Amino acid sequence: MRAVDLIRKKRDSGEHSREEIDFLISGYTCGDIPDYQMAAWLMAVWLRGINRSELAALTEAMLYSGQVLNLARIPGRKVDKHSTGGVGDKISLILAPIVAAAGLTVPMISGRGLGHTGGTLDKLESIPGFNVNLSLEDFYSVLRECGMGLIGQTAEIAPADKKIYALRDATSTVENIGLICASIMSKKLAEGIDALVLDVKTGSGAFMKREEDSVLLAELMVETGQRMEKKVVALITDMNQPLGRMAGHSNEIAECIDVLNGGGPADLVQLSMELSAWMFFLGDRTKSVEDGRLLAEAMIVSGQAKEKFKHCIRLQGGDERVIDDPQLLPQAKSKVDVTSFTAGFLTATNCEQLGTALATLGGGREKKEDTIDHAVGLEFHKRIGDRVEKGEPLVTIHYNSGAKLVEAQSLIAASYEIGEAAPAESLPLLRRIIGA
Amino acid sequence: MRAVDLIRKKRDSGEHSREEIDFLISGYTCGDIPDYQMAAWLMAVWLRGINRSELAALTEAMLYSGQVLNLARIPGRKVDKHSTGGVGDKISLILAPIVAAAGLTVPMISGRGLGHTGGTLDKLESIPGFNVNLSLEDFYSVLRECGMGLIGQTAEIAPADKKIYALRDATSTVENIGLICASIMSKKLAEGIDALVLDVKTGSGAFMKREEDSVLLAELMVETGQRMEKKVVALITDMNQPLGRMAGHSNEIAECIDVLNGGGPADLVQLSMELSAWMFFLGDRTKSVEDGRLLAEAMIVSGQAKEKFKHCIRLQGGDERVIDDPQLLPQAKSKVDVTSFTAGFLTATNCEQLGTALATLGGGREKKEDTIDHAVGLEFHKRIGDRVEKGEPLVTIHYNSGAKLVEAQSLIAASYEIGEAAPAESLPLLRRIIGA
Repeated sequence: MRAVDLIRKKRDSGEHSREEIDFLISGYTCGDIPDYQMAAWLMAVWLRGINRSELAALTEAMLYSGQVLNLARIPGRKVDKHSTGGVGDKISLILAPIVAAAGLTVPMISGRGLGHTGGTLDKLESIPGFNVNLSLEDFYSVLRECGMGLIGQTAEIAPADKKIYALRDATSTVENIGLICASIMSKKLAEGIDALVLDVKTGSGAFMKREEDSVLLAELMVETGQRMEKKVVALITDMNQPLGRMAGHSNEIAECIDVLNGGGPADLVQLSMELSAWMFFLGDRTKSVEDGRLLAEAMIVSGQAKEKFKHCIRLQGGDERVIDDPQLLPQAKSKVDVTSFTAGFLTATNCEQLGTALATLGGGREKKEDTIDHAVGLEFHKRIGDRVEKGEPLVTIHYNSGAKLVEAQSLIAASYEIGEAAPAESLPLLRRIIGA
Repeated sequence: MRAVDLIRKKRDSGEHSREEIDFLISGYTCGDIPDYQMAAWLMAVWLRGINRSELAALTEAMLYSGQVLNLARIPGRKVDKHSTGGVGDKISLILAPIVAAAGLTVPMISGRGLGHTGGTLDKLESIPGFNVNLSLEDFYSVLRECGMGLIGQTAEIAPADKKIYALRDATSTVENIGLICASIMSKKLAEGIDALVLDVKTGSGAFMKREEDSVLLAELMVETGQRMEKKVVALITDMNQPLGRMAGHSNEIAECIDVLNGGGPADLVQLSMELSAWMFFLGDRTKSVEDGRLLAEAMIVSGQAKEKFKHCIRLQGGDERVIDDPQLLPQAKSKVDVTSFTAGFLTATNCEQLGTALATLGGGREKKEDTIDHAVGLEFHKRIGDRVEKGEPLVTIHYNSGAKLVEAQSLIAASYEIGEAAPAESLPLLRRIIGA
């Protein structure tokens, strides 16, 4: 078998056998197949597509390119959540403490932000000392001790995905439903979990802008997980505007702490409760999703979720005092408002562009090697449907360097559509549930 | 400008500006853009296509990625021929001596064989001592002294093409009309010639199997050349069966010598005369193509073409005695016939597969790094339309090692279609002329 022939086959819309997919993925992982051949194959896949049996083979080849965590020594159910990413989506850091506080285990392997989206690992690193690079042994012991752990993809976990994702990012082959599904599911299934809740974003700030694409991705992921005998549901949720009021790193951690303290913006609280409820239900912790909602609320009200997060921060080397004093998180030097040029109603945001504006200020990465300024951020004052007065602040920018401030300001200003009337229909946060 | 954005643009069927193409080609040539990004872009181009203005920009960017030969010090017209390649296509080695013998200059920069096709450089290297790796200064002096020279693509000539071609070969992005046109024309225009005759092959042994694709490629190349103010015509010629009776290296050189001696198979002689005639006409050596045919014949009959080839061999370090004693060329140890299983008429050949059979015996390359056995070859006894008896030899294999003989034999046997009746229509060797 030769890679060049397999590239040709996919280029010509052929269907790969399981053996061919295994050959490509194992060859690429061990370095026998060079980056340039994989890049050509990925572009051919992007443009020609892969069918469901190819996708199953691809996901499994990537999953078994490395180690599958063995959590057998840890009692009870292991559950996780994965989001396809958006702007202000800090929800993992609320869910994991809620769910772990109620006795399930959450072995969460997360990613870094890229492009307009933020990443859980980057957000955690705004907590002084927090170490996301635990060895697997240390990860196991954190999980045993507090029921949750938050780390990055180690060399052992789905190394094929790690290598392929970096290549896709550099070759404009990211936004493909099949490749996204294989990437997500290979990593998540390598966590050795029993159940998985997927938060598939849709709208102007999501990778999938159209709801039908999000649904298709959700269906593929649910099908892939179920074929591997995992309990999986996917919630299709709105990303036409940022989630919560904050985007950035420090200020998203602070907003999570607000929610764990029983406060926080309504949309963020609602989605946190919904996703936690599904994790409880799929993890056999509650008999219904409704019971799951009640349990999630109890974990907040009792302060147990907040204590759980503190415990995890301490175990992973972070300064747990940030929970009671969020001012210990990196703070930006200056603030400035972007105000509305006109009066009316907020009818839409270009949510991706808001994420790009944040990245422009240093709060995101263009390239993998870029470092992140954890202190910069955006504070959103208006949601779609809100009344806006002329001169009223839409966004407060928290920034350190003025270098790209004007660029960020104009990106933000151009991201807001103000109309004469409020939109006729409101966008529900939760659109659909797939796989339930 | 970023390569990743340009890949995305082409992936999404966008049209590149000249500046974007220049950025990609110059960045790739100097190493700023890595192989994997170029590979993804090439696959996107393969699948999405490039339009004529992108093609013009691409050809020029590749042409000016290196040096354009300055042949101003050599008096008279400089002409060349290029073939898109096939099986048994040794015609450059007949044309160059004919045309140079009549006073034009032929600065021929050729390629090596790859896959099922042979390459002029490899064939020349079966002549003991023949050096195809002259420096440009030595090439100029050979051209001045004998009016013809035969070398490979030096580091100075279209380096972008050299790098891109190697990548295309490894990523199944070879057979694309736009990329083929840019590759051929950037190299040929870098020769600093006044006129170019293109031999665009069509049929089962050509890269372009369908005549309409060959015509499209021919039109693009003619248009590209004419835009650069060169005289260019393209002959669409048949490659549904090997050209001449011989494929291989030593035995193709021997067949060329037959033609230069006034012999040789009819198809090879006919096409040699036709292409020479066009080179004479475009090079202003004769007033008409018909006069060109007469002049070409005269160069054979007078022995001048043969003497010219001898002279060139001597100047390039080769053993010129091969011209009078072809037995000095490397000879294969053994011969065996592939015979017909049935009686009837030869209706078609899978000509590409015949080329693959030759490569299997060591007479071609699968990978660039492979070495070639110059002595092995195939001798074809039947042409399409010929009567074949049961047990009659179709092909004589000249081979050295029996290792892959059975594989080659079955490839050859499977390449011949024998029917009860001769095909109703004969395939003319010369199909069309484009640009005249």
